[in-house]
Parts: sequence; C-alpha cells; structure tokens
Amino acid sequence: MDSGNTAWLLASAALVCLMIPGIAFFYGGMVGSRRILNMMLMCFGGASLVAVLWVLYGYSAAFGNSLTGAGLLGNPLEFLGLSQLLVEDPDSSIPVALFAAFQLMFACVTTALVAGAAAGRMKFGAWMLFAGLWATLVYFPVAHWVFAFSSEDGSVTGGWIANQLGAIDFAGGTAVHMNAGVAALALALVLGRSKGWPHASGKPHSRPLVLLGAGLLWVGWYGFNAGSALSAGHSAAVVFLNTAVAAAAGLLGWMLMDRLRLGTSSSLGAASGLISALVAITPACGAVSPLGALAIGLIAGLVCSLAIEWKYRLGYDDSLDVVGVHAVGGLLGTLLIGLFATDAAPNGVSGLFYGGGLELLGIQALASAAVLVYSFVVTWIIAKVLATTIGLRIPEESELQGIDMAAHAESAYLNDEEPVELGARP
Amino acid sequence: MDSGNTAWLLASAALVCLMIPGIAFFYGGMVGSRRILNMMLMCFGGASLVAVLWVLYGYSAAFGNSLTGAGLLGNPLEFLGLSQLLVEDPDSSIPVALFAAFQLMFACVTTALVAGAAAGRMKFGAWMLFAGLWATLVYFPVAHWVFAFSSEDGSVTGGWIANQLGAIDFAGGTAVHMNAGVAALALALVLGRSKGWPHASGKPHSRPLVLLGAGLLWVGWYGFNAGSALSAGHSAAVVFLNTAVAAAAGLLGWMLMDRLRLGTSSSLGAASGLISALVAITPACGAVSPLGALAIGLIAGLVCSLAIEWKYRLGYDDSLDVVGVHAVGGLLGTLLIGLFATDAAPNGVSGLFYGGGLELLGIQALASAAVLVYSFVVTWIIAKVLATTIGLRIPEESELQGIDMAAHAESAYLNDEEPVELGARP
Amino acid sequence: MDSGNTAWLLASAALVCLMIPGIAFFYGGMVGSRRILNMMLMCFGGASLVAVLWVLYGYSAAFGNSLTGAGLLGNPLEFLGLSQLLVEDPDSSIPVALFAAFQLMFACVTTALVAGAAAGRMKFGAWMLFAGLWATLVYFPVAHWVFAFSSEDGSVTGGWIANQLGAIDFAGGTAVHMNAGVAALALALVLGRSKGWPHASGKPHSRPLVLLGAGLLWVGWYGFNAGSALSAGHSAAVVFLNTAVAAAAGLLGWMLMDRLRLGTSSSLGAASGLISALVAITPACGAVSPLGALAIGLIAGLVCSLAIEWKYRLGYDDSLDVVGVHAVGGLLGTLLIGLFATDAAPNGVSGLFYGGGLELLGIQALASAAVLVYSFVVTWIIAKVLATTIGLRIPEESELQGIDMAAHAESAYLNDEEPVELGARP
Repeated sequence: MDSGNTAWLLASAALVCLMIPGIAFFYGGMVGSRRILNMMLMCFGGASLVAVLWVLYGYSAAFGNSLTGAGLLGNPLEFLGLSQLLVEDPDSSIPVALFAAFQLMFACVTTALVAGAAAGRMKFGAWMLFAGLWATLVYFPVAHWVFAFSSEDGSVTGGWIANQLGAIDFAGGTAVHMNAGVAALALALVLGRSKGWPHASGKPHSRPLVLLGAGLLWVGWYGFNAGSALSAGHSAAVVFLNTAVAAAAGLLGWMLMDRLRLGTSSSLGAASGLISALVAITPACGAVSPLGALAIGLIAGLVCSLAIEWKYRLGYDDSLDVVGVHAVGGLLGTLLIGLFATDAAPNGVSGLFYGGGLELLGIQALASAAVLVYSFVVTWIIAKVLATTIGLRIPEESELQGIDMAAHAESAYLNDEEPVELGARP
Repeated sequence: MDSGNTAWLLASAALVCLMIPGIAFFYGGMVGSRRILNMMLMCFGGASLVAVLWVLYGYSAAFGNSLTGAGLLGNPLEFLGLSQLLVEDPDSSIPVALFAAFQLMFACVTTALVAGAAAGRMKFGAWMLFAGLWATLVYFPVAHWVFAFSSEDGSVTGGWIANQLGAIDFAGGTAVHMNAGVAALALALVLGRSKGWPHASGKPHSRPLVLLGAGLLWVGWYGFNAGSALSAGHSAAVVFLNTAVAAAAGLLGWMLMDRLRLGTSSSLGAASGLISALVAITPACGAVSPLGALAIGLIAGLVCSLAIEWKYRLGYDDSLDVVGVHAVGGLLGTLLIGLFATDAAPNGVSGLFYGGGLELLGIQALASAAVLVYSFVVTWIIAKVLATTIGLRIPEESELQGIDMAAHAESAYLNDEEPVELGARP
Repeated sequence: MDSGNTAWLLASAALVCLMIPGIAFFYGGMVGSRRILNMMLMCFGGASLVAVLWVLYGYSAAFGNSLTGAGLLGNPLEFLGLSQLLVEDPDSSIPVALFAAFQLMFACVTTALVAGAAAGRMKFGAWMLFAGLWATLVYFPVAHWVFAFSSEDGSVTGGWIANQLGAIDFAGGTAVHMNAGVAALALALVLGRSKGWPHASGKPHSRPLVLLGAGLLWVGWYGFNAGSALSAGHSAAVVFLNTAVAAAAGLLGWMLMDRLRLGTSSSLGAASGLISALVAITPACGAVSPLGALAIGLIAGLVCSLAIEWKYRLGYDDSLDVVGVHAVGGLLGTLLIGLFATDAAPNGVSGLFYGGGLELLGIQALASAAVLVYSFVVTWIIAKVLATTIGLRIPEESELQGIDMAAHAESAYLNDEEPVELGARP
C-alpha cells in the first residue's frame, strides 16, 4: 500500500465532498430568494440519503462482483454494510475503504446534480424518495457499467462498458454527467413546468452565490478528475493540468459566444462555461493533450451556451440548465475523445485526429447512447410512478408563495432584525 | 519520514483551517444582520490569538513532557517559541513542526466554537481576553490530557486520559467538542441572556450562510478526523468513510425528527444534524464499523434535535446551540464508543455490542465527566472574574442597536450604493 | 518519482486554485452591489485567459531555458502547447506536468490580484486584453527571474534573481505580490479615479463576502506557500507552521493598530491584516523561525494598516488596497528576510539578527527594486497604450449606473421574486 497514493485519494475525496455545497450554491443562487433553501436541501438531503444507501447496498451494487457475470449490476449483498472494508487488503495499492468513500462522494454528487431539474416545485418527501430510488435503480447500475473494472486475475467481473465495450470515461462523463443530465430532463418532463415559467419564475436571486458554487466546484473537480487516477503520479498530474486548462477555455468560450450573440458576457455565462467545460473534460482528462483539453473545453463552452436555449424551444422547465450543461457537456466530452485522444496521454489510445480510426468514436457513441437511453427511461418511469401515486408537485399556492416557506417553514433571508425597544424584556 | 503521511497531514491541517471560516459562517448566518461581523470576528480573532499563544507556550503546555509526570499539564517552557521544531527529527514518521501546525488548528477551532455562546452581547476586548485565558487554562491542559501520548520508550510522559485512563477519543470528542460545548454553557450563564431573548433576538438573518458554514465544516472535518490518524493508510481510510457516513445519517436523523415533531424539516435542522453527527463521530471514527458510524450519526441527529430545546426550559441564551450540538453530541459520541466499538476497527477495542464488557463505557464516562467538570468550572471562574473586573457585556443601548456598529463601527451589508449625480466630483 | 511529494503538490495546486474565488470574493465584497459581478468576472476571466496563454507559451516563457542564457526570459517556444509534458520524466521527483499546473495557478492568481485596481470603471474587453498583455510582458518574465532555477548539471539556465543574484523568495513576495501590487498602482494611475471617489464610490456592500474571500485565501495560501517546497517533508512543514503563525499575528496587528488609532477594530481590518501578513510571509516562510514569522506577520499588519492611507494623500484610486497590502506587504516580507532569516530554517541563510551581515538585506532590496521598477514601468506602458488606442474607461453614465448592468447586463441581487398571480400562465 502506497501512502502517497492514499494521501492524494484522501484529499481528493474531501475535494469531491466540497462539490456538494458547490452544487447547492450553484443551483441555489440561480433560483429565487424564496426557493433557495429547498434547492440547497434537495442537494444536501439527497446526497445524504444516497450516502446511507451506499453503505447499505450501493457500494456492493456498483462494485460487487457482477451478478451472473453479465456486467449489468454488482451483487448488492456482497459488501452489505461495508464491514468487510475494516479488514486491510494487503494486495490493494490503496485502502479499499477509501475507494468506497471516494466513490460514495461520486454517488452523492451525481444525485445532487439531478436536483436542479426540480427547482421550486417538488414535494420534499417525494424528492427524497425519488433520490433513493434513482440512486438504486439508475446510478448504482450505471456506475457498475462504467467504473467497475474486472480484476486482472479474473476473480472479479466488472461492468460491461468498462470491460467488454472498453469505452473511455476517465471520471464520469457517462456515469455522472450524461446520467444526471438526462435524468434531469426526464424528471423535468414528468414534473411539468413551474407556474409562470419562463418569465415569472427562475430568476437568479444571487449571482454571487452562483459564482461561489462555481468556484467550489472548480476546486473540488480536481479531486473528482485527478483523484480518479487512484494514484499520485504522472497520470494524475496530466489529468490535473488538462482539467485546469479545459475549465479556463470553457469559461472563455461561453463568454465569447455570449459577447458575439448578445453583445455582453455575463457572470451566469462565465460560471456555466466553466462548469460545462469541466463536465466535458471529465471523461477525456486522461486521454488528451493539454491542447486537446483546450479544444474540448472551448467547444463545450461554445456549444453548451447554445444548447441551453433548447429548453425554450422544446418547452421543458430546466431553469438551471442541468440538461444543457451536464447532458450535452458530458456527451461532447465523451464523443470528442474519439477525435482528440492521443496515445501519449495516460489512457494510451488514439482518436481520429491522432492516427486512430473511427472505431473509438463508435465505442464512445455506443456507451453514451446506452447511458442516455437507460437513464432517461428508468428515471421517467420512477418519476411517473411517484407522480401517479404520492404525487410530485406542491400545491399551486405554495409554489407561488415560494417553496421555502411552504415546505420548510423558513425564509432564507431576514433583511433586518428590528431594534428591540428598551424595557421590552421577555 | 514518510512523504505520503506528511502529504496527508499537510492537506489535513489546511482542511482544519477551513473550519475556522466554516464556524464563522455557521454562526454568523444564525445571528441577526447587525451582529454577524462581531460573531465572525470573535471566531477569526479568537483563533488568531490562540495561534500566537500556541507558538509562545501553548504547544509546550499541551505536548511538552508532563510536569512532575502527573499527566495534567505539559511543561509550558519546553518548546518556547517552537524554534526547536526547525530541526528535523529523524525518528519521527511525520515532521514535528507539522504536528504542531495541525494541533495549532485544533486549538483555534475549539476556541472559535466557544464564541457562539457570546453572540451579540460581549465586549470584543473582553472576548479576546477570555479567549486567551480560556485556551491557556482550559484548552491547553485538556488537550494534554487527551491528545498527548507518552512515548514508547518512556522518555516523554503524556496526559492522564490518553495514557493512564486509556479512554478512546480519536479526534477530540472530549478535548474539543464537550470542552467547547460546556465552556459555552458556562460563558452563556455568566454573560446572561441577550435583551429580548428568545423572541426578539437570535433570529438567523441568512440561512444560506449557515449552510455555507456547514458545508465548509463538512469538508474540513475530514482533515480533522482522518488527519488525526497522522498517517495516510488504512486507519485514515476507515476514519474517512465513517465520518462521511455518520454526517449523512445525522442530517437525515435531525430532519426526520423535525418532520415528526414539527411537520416540516428545515435548513437549520439539516445543517445542525450534519454538524451534530460530525461532532459525535469525532471521538468514535476510529473505533466503529460503517454501520456503527451510521448508528452514531443517526442517534446524534435525533437526540441533539431534542437537546437544543433545553435552553428554553433552563433559560440560558445559547442561541447558536453550542451546548446542544457540541457538548451533547460530543458526549454521545464518546459514550457510544462503549457500545459500538468493534475490535475490527483501527482502535482495536470492543464495546458492549461487540463482545466487550461495560468497562469501556465506564472509562469513556469517566473521561467525559472529567472534561465536562473541569471545563465548566474553570470557564465559569474565568468568565466570572472578567465580569466582575473589566465587565463582559456591552451597554444595553449598543446591544439593541446591534453590536456590529457599536463594537466595530461597521454594518455587514450596504444594500445599495446610491448613484452619484453627474458633476458631483469630490 | 515520489508519490507523497506528488500528492501534496496535487493538493496544493487545488488549494491555490481556491485562491481565485478567494480573491474574487475578497474584492467583490469590498465594492458596491452594482459592481461586484464585474469585479468577480475580472478575476475569473483574467485568470482563465492567463491559463490558456500559459499552455500556449507562458510556461515556456517562465520555465523554458533562458534565451541567450541571460536569465531574463525563458524560450517561449520550448514547450509550446505543453505536449512534451505528457511524457514522464524519470529523473524528476515530481511530474513536470504537475509543476506546470501548480505554476499555472500562480500566474492566474497574480493576474487576478491586479484586477482590484480597476474596480468599477474599466471596459471588460480592455481588461481582458490588458490581462493577456500583462501576463505576457510582465508576469511570465518576472516569474522566470524569480522562480526558474538553473539545473544542477548546467543544462538548463534559469532566471537572474533566483540564480545570479541569489535572492530569497520562497513563494513569490517579489514575483507575485510586489509585482501585482505595483502593477495595480500603475493601472490605477492610468485609469484614473472612479467618479465620486473616495466618498461616493468604493463602499463595501458585503463585509461577510470579504471575510469569505479572506477565509478561502487563508486556506488556499497553505498550498501556495507550503506547496512551493515541491515536496512533502520537513521544509513544507516548517513553511506551513510559519504561514499559520504569521497570518494570525497579522490579523491581530492590524486590529490592534485600528483600535489604537480609530478606537475600534473592524472586519475589514481583520481581513486585511490576515492577508497582508500572508503576503509578507510568502517570500519568508522558508527562511525564518516561528517567532520570526510571528514578527513578520505582526509588522505587516501594523505597517500595512498605515500604508493603505497613502491612497488618500497621493490621490490614486486603489479602493481595494492592492497597493497597500500586496506591494507593501510583499516588500516588507522580502526585506525582513534580511533581518530575520535564520540558517536553522529550510533556506539555510542568516539575516542580520541571526549573525548574518547586511549583504542579504542588500540582495533582497535589489531584487525588490528590480521587480518594482520593471513591473511598474511596463504595466504603465501597457495601460497607457491601451488607453490611447481602444480606451480603458467605461462611459461616465455607465459607471454611475453601476458597471454590472452596463458591462454585463446583470444585477448581482434580485431582492425578491414577485409572487405570480394565480391564473397568470405564460
């Protein structure tokens, strides 16, 4: 066991945890001042529920030995409660308990990302139930497909995308971002639009909080991507550099497109550009050169700034752009590996522009399609079942009043405390 | 010396430093908008003063060789100014200067925690003096009791709780949380209640800032707990996983209890549940399995959500719930080790539920009682002496006006800058 | 290659990235509520642009082999696009790609620091152009002077300050802080004052955001300073401890001076004291003892609290005190090495108070003068050229209206979302 690798993975897991408040503020700043608490609580609460499920059976479902060797789902009973991880595995280069903790954070982050689709109009209890079902039926299986590698000695069989198909997804373009993004679309469609959307709802009440969230995500993402190397060496270093470069290019790309189209660049655009590029480089960070990362980040910023307009044309209420940023950004990054991958990078494969053929692009497209279709369909079914049983939406009056008061009996801000008159003792 | 262990302890110390702004925002969001700056400055200022004292004599008092070998106080003159730590110790697995820096952060965090008891009504100078005296007379000795391990060759004698008694406190349930929590109670009692408490004071002006603080604490806590392993290996990994699991369960437990009792779950409850569980798992993180951590976190969330109501019944003004969260949460975690400890965990001892007897529970109770009594009594005396000499409270008018303006001549927020009329040059 | 060293440098690079939102909030809280977005976007945008230039030619210009061996500029074509860094260098103790990423963050942070001088009145496009030119013509060369060490085998020649002159600047007192601080002065002079300065402009709209920024900077700075050891060992440990101690002393020093001069200590003073001490310890963190760090931090807090008043006497609009904190703090720290350096510290040289002569002080003064003069002159020329060609200032009306709306068509805060009337569907 290597203490340096362990040190970096410990730090990385903490950094990924920082992404949970990061998402909460990124989303929370984008909603109205009477919706922020609910938005943040969906992130904190959903993440917490998934963490508990992870211990109970989630880690097993994602990283247990494949049921029937099919690569579709790990044995959910294999590490029930995770007590086995108290025993040190002398053959592992990092503690297995730490790998479980690192991946726990991935499950939490991914679930929190989906919450953006439900801003301001979903019963809190229904959200929590949805989050638990979604992690169980969508995230855990898909994480198995993408992140569970078969052991070299053949004793443990992993997921079909990572092993049979051999698609490249370094840190979760498919399992995390396309998965969360398309699930957000399905949930938003079943939920229906906010009252007054798009004009009278969905105005960001605090852009500084959006930038705070983006800033925390920016930093946490280094743990997400470079931590996924599972070691502190050359691979993690290249991944880190690529991540930094892509993020910068994405911010510039989105701002540039806004400037060209709208005449001004905005803080929302800058934040979204940063995040969309971080999304796009997530699968690709180990497969490309710094110039490739620059190109992917730039393309993500440019394209996603257009993709977020689809919601107006198609009429789904995704005010926080989970679809346009995460589904589209994740798809871009996953596919662009097929073009920009260079075998000099840690993944060691070549895409079309570096002498490889079109095969890699096909593999990447297949993995993307599988995750998009599975996640959309199963999420839609979960949401529809909940909608027709317990119901998803809060009452119309509550929505118009602001969900924070209706669902949590709280207001985010008290603008002032009135001076207490002298002599007024309790 | 192992670079991996050192790398993790460096990162951990930075993470623990993040807890200082974390506490400042957690507390600052919970007070009124004309009290937040004073609240935050008590955290920043108290922590800074203690950092300076740490260099001068605090590290020596906590980690110097026990005076007379009694295990009550380290020799405060042993490492005066810490110049000795410039010399590399070839026998140490981590740099001693780094251990001193890591533990410096603990002293700062613990002192900042106490500040919550003084929200809105304490002279700033009196607070600073209190902070210095409290660290000197309470924190440094208690840290010696709990954190100073005797050297194996017998050349250095440490504290009585860590060595003679042999209580288990991985990262500071007694020395940090019960200590700060009960000191907060003593200070609140001597200070007396805010004018208008509980109705006209103590309303949180910004719940998003509370969640920000909770989020920063959440992340920083991984350094606090898993850093306390002082190495980057299997123990730190288990501690990290346990910490993550407990925090999630605590958030859910508190929200659930609120839902059952009050009909709604709130952001304050979620944040408090997260923190109370992090408090409770702090002593226990190396002694239990992930399921044990889940149980401890859940119990902390459930119980602390009830414990914070004592302040209304007993009439002490602890608006920020330092007592209900830190004293109670710390006590819960320390005692529950006696039930949930499993010898498969890093600490290697068994509690009642895992085949051990009641002895461990007795040891844990004794350690808790010692810290609670010592800290309460000495803190009460310090506060009382200051109250009767220089005085602790700001004038009534200042308190009603808001302490920020009275004590710091500042307002936290300027809602707008008036447009300057054209032609109005300075 | 050592995984522990790599782990710490990975974590450090992430921590330094945290300083970018740190600066953005530190500055953003200090400006008016209709200027914060522009302020934050100058930080995010400028940093992103510099990151892209770093990949293209910046890293080469800073760390490439010195052109003609003069120690003035690295060969900007040497690592064009950084593709070379994909190849693992077996002789390096840390991955070169990681060193490039770590130093990328330094370039970003330094550029963002300069933005404070342009608060509320600079065209966004002109700022971006300025940032790119400034990094190219000022930061990259000066980073070469100070940070590029010649290889031991003589195959690579580095910068003149690091090698020929042999000045001590552990983490960037000259290259980062004096450089940014004096560049801010030059830019502020060419830009001219805000309308209404100093009375009607420059009032901080949110001191909690200032404290948030200061808190993030505090934490990130450990990566900045202790990461600059490029290893996880005794040197990094001492640097970490010194950084923590100095920061605390600086906060106390500034608050004390405010108390003595103005009668009260303030949150702005506390935050500025913290940062000014962190600035001052940056060059000195590897050269002094903890008591020396305490002295340097204290002196920085005391002196910088006076230095920020120069702007009123001399009439330059540096509302965010980039000059008084970064130029003055950086100069103090760089010079005080000449007094407080002790050969027991990692740098291994002695200053005047520890038995060395005045020579070191002279060397430090020379390095400081070189950076101050070069940066001021070149920055002034860049700004003047831009001012006389494309123009730097936004229209007067826009400035009075608030630059956020004028330049970005956004307001930071929407105080409330109006309730939508029932039946008002889109």
